[in-house]
Amino acid sequence: MSPQPTSVADEAADPTTEKAVTQDPQLREGAFGNATGLSCRECGAVQPLGPSYACPECFGPLEVAYSFPALTRDEIEAGPNNIWRYKALLPVPADIESSPNTEPGFTRLLRAENLGRELGIDTLWVKDDSTNPTNSFKDRVVACALSAARELGASVFACPSTGNLANAVAAAGARAGMRTVVLIPSNLEHPKQVNSAVFTDSLIAVDGNYDDVNKLAQEIAAEEEGWAFVNVNVRPFYAEGSKTLGYEIAEQLGWRLPDQIVIPVASGSQLTKVDKAFRELIELGLVEDKPYTVFGAQAEGCSPVSTAYKAGVDAIRPVKPDTIAKSLAIGNPADGIYVLDVAKRTGGAVEDVTDDEVRAAIVKLARTEGIFTETAGGTTMAVLEKLVAAGLLDPTKETVAINTGHGLKTLDAVSDQVGPRATIKASYDAFAEAGLV
Amino acid sequence: MSPQPTSVADEAADPTTEKAVTQDPQLREGAFGNATGLSCRECGAVQPLGPSYACPECFGPLEVAYSFPALTRDEIEAGPNNIWRYKALLPVPADIESSPNTEPGFTRLLRAENLGRELGIDTLWVKDDSTNPTNSFKDRVVACALSAARELGASVFACPSTGNLANAVAAAGARAGMRTVVLIPSNLEHPKQVNSAVFTDSLIAVDGNYDDVNKLAQEIAAEEEGWAFVNVNVRPFYAEGSKTLGYEIAEQLGWRLPDQIVIPVASGSQLTKVDKAFRELIELGLVEDKPYTVFGAQAEGCSPVSTAYKAGVDAIRPVKPDTIAKSLAIGNPADGIYVLDVAKRTGGAVEDVTDDEVRAAIVKLARTEGIFTETAGGTTMAVLEKLVAAGLLDPTKETVAINTGHGLKTLDAVSDQVGPRATIKASYDAFAEAGLV
Ligand SMILES: Cc1ncc(COP(=O)(O)O)c(C=O)c1O
Ligand SMILES: Cc1ncc(COP(=O)(O)O)c(C=O)c1O
Ligand SMILES: [Zn+2]
Ligand SMILES: [Zn+2]
Repeated sequence: MSPQPTSVADEAADPTTEKAVTQDPQLREGAFGNATGLSCRECGAVQPLGPSYACPECFGPLEVAYSFPALTRDEIEAGPNNIWRYKALLPVPADIESSPNTEPGFTRLLRAENLGRELGIDTLWVKDDSTNPTNSFKDRVVACALSAARELGASVFACPSTGNLANAVAAAGARAGMRTVVLIPSNLEHPKQVNSAVFTDSLIAVDGNYDDVNKLAQEIAAEEEGWAFVNVNVRPFYAEGSKTLGYEIAEQLGWRLPDQIVIPVASGSQLTKVDKAFRELIELGLVEDKPYTVFGAQAEGCSPVSTAYKAGVDAIRPVKPDTIAKSLAIGNPADGIYVLDVAKRTGGAVEDVTDDEVRAAIVKLARTEGIFTETAGGTTMAVLEKLVAAGLLDPTKETVAINTGHGLKTLDAVSDQVGPRATIKASYDAFAEAGLV
Repeated sequence: MSPQPTSVADEAADPTTEKAVTQDPQLREGAFGNATGLSCRECGAVQPLGPSYACPECFGPLEVAYSFPALTRDEIEAGPNNIWRYKALLPVPADIESSPNTEPGFTRLLRAENLGRELGIDTLWVKDDSTNPTNSFKDRVVACALSAARELGASVFACPSTGNLANAVAAAGARAGMRTVVLIPSNLEHPKQVNSAVFTDSLIAVDGNYDDVNKLAQEIAAEEEGWAFVNVNVRPFYAEGSKTLGYEIAEQLGWRLPDQIVIPVASGSQLTKVDKAFRELIELGLVEDKPYTVFGAQAEGCSPVSTAYKAGVDAIRPVKPDTIAKSLAIGNPADGIYVLDVAKRTGGAVEDVTDDEVRAAIVKLARTEGIFTETAGGTTMAVLEKLVAAGLLDPTKETVAINTGHGLKTLDAVSDQVGPRATIKASYDAFAEAGLV
């Protein structure tokens, strides 16, 4: 039985017609930690914690609300070297570390002096999430979604993905011993396909772009019981995982917010959650209250949010993606309007760059800082450069750029640009001819 | 001018005829931390700290000797979340963190319950070094070699490599702003080539196997001044980096040594240094003195050490490698005889497995634990399984297996075995036909 699609891509399905993750989950005490409910981003109506993701009043997206206890830096620093050091700030139970998970996070925050010098930025840092368990920031959100799926009694752990999410869901599900089903666009980069299929026998390639795949996932979620689609019907819990990027950056700077931060935008979830993390840290008194500016990065071939930003409009007009930055290729981003809000509120901007600029930025980051990023990171670094040139980003202020993924997953983006200088016989003479001595 | 090769592959060149990294380096106070000299593994003669790697008395390999201060667990735990928390135990200066480096280490030690269950091992852990900065354990050794190269005033940072070392040297050199030259066998896996070339414009592909490439590196090192070949003329400093694997495993187990450990063997350096680390921790009183057993893992197509072990002989007979485990394809391993010593002393063994067993083990680790390893890790996991079956490894004792590298670098090893279950149209009906609902 094939239902008609009830919603547009990457937006909430009609919650009145769909099946829940589980119809009536028996939640254990503390299943979601200090979370208190799910509040609507549009109308503010609050739902009880459970398998909901869209407001029954206005269909707006739901977001986790909390009642945080007093929390000290010391308490956090005494925690494990992964995202669970912030478990008090996440919708996860206090015993989260005892359930098998990939233990993501607490990745390097690297001072990028060489790149900063090239771009003319005085104090630049790269938050490097390419060294997460499956080599992207998605391990963070998936770890939170896995906890929710478990607490809600889901039997299948699933996602539609632009690539990295597929890797993260397949790996986390394998480790947790959960059945996984992973949907990807059939034209996805080969390394990302293998890096999912190695973990699961249920990788499904779908002819179409991500927005088509996402729509299909929403249909399945509405039809099947017990399926936790991490970015669809457990999205409120999933999305909170990105806050840990913000927490870590602040902690690693010595419990201080940066002045400026550049973040890639696909659905827009990550950017809005880093902003949420910064605001929470201020509220909790864990960092000093100070202004910060958030910039969003897109690829020109899929830039619905930067287009809206530049046009000064509040609505996002969906696009058909055509860019090498496939992991960012969401034409109809669920959180795009909230990205616009954050950029405006903080005095930032949303900018986009060409595929050639993306390729060049990948090599520049590698040659200056020894970090091999994927096309998403190339997009972020190229936007960083463009923002300085445009005078939108202040090069005298402390700046962080997030590298969200790994270059080994998008090898083709640079395979034509870099390679051996020479292929030689195994002799000193042949080596000398290569011109290096 | 092309000198005649003065030594066999991966063994020390004749130190009387070669050029030093720098002829007469002006060492600053504390350049090598608590290291006191370089002692010969064969005759025990001690050389002053400097650019030496072979004993002038007997040509034996030199190893760093120390005079350690009293050191507490608390002092270590207060350090950074990377290998520099152990800087007091490494040949690096006290201000090592202030020099740009890739900040490797402190990778996950994951409890592997699912894999343990499949293999019949009660308590199994995987130390996962695939999430290091360039996705192998080589970032550890390279960070120590980089410090030595800097302190010795080298102008070129170089290596011959089976792949992972090339990635690590090229990245660390870029970040440190040093000129790099990286030599690889020309038939190296494509991802490992790109993952070096993206960082350096001086990647040189050499027609021949690793042992040929290594011999060429020794010729260049003997000919050129100021070239620090990490695993040739600064090898004593380089090798110490692998000790951090041993330190981390002990610390992450709660300051306790495992009963058994399985480690892959190429040159054999890593295995001997993990053993050295365990002995140091006992001597320093940081862990309880208890017996532990060390096992070495090789691929059948390049198994000179396991062959010697099984034959019960003390000498390693060089082989011509032919295996998909290219990162372990050293036919003439410099530290092979010391691997035999460690295996015998600790009651361990050295075992080898076929390429098909390697492939199967990669998928098994992925499906059970969500870790995507390269062929070297597949070798280690397959050997682990074989050791249990042979009754050589005690399944009731606590066991650690080291995953030293990332599957994204050796994609072809599994590309034929795994992939999408189906490619479908973007409709629920098409999905239902795939048999997952
Ligand atoms: C590497 C990478 N960076 C950034 C993003 C953007 O994430 P979001 O959808 O939260 O905007 C994605 C999304 O797939 C990604 O894979
Ligand atoms: C992934 C991986 N594991 C293990 C090894 C073995 O290292 P060693 O030469 O120290 O024995 C190597 C060496 O290149 C490697 O690349
Ligand atoms: Zn509402
Ligand atoms: Zn000697």
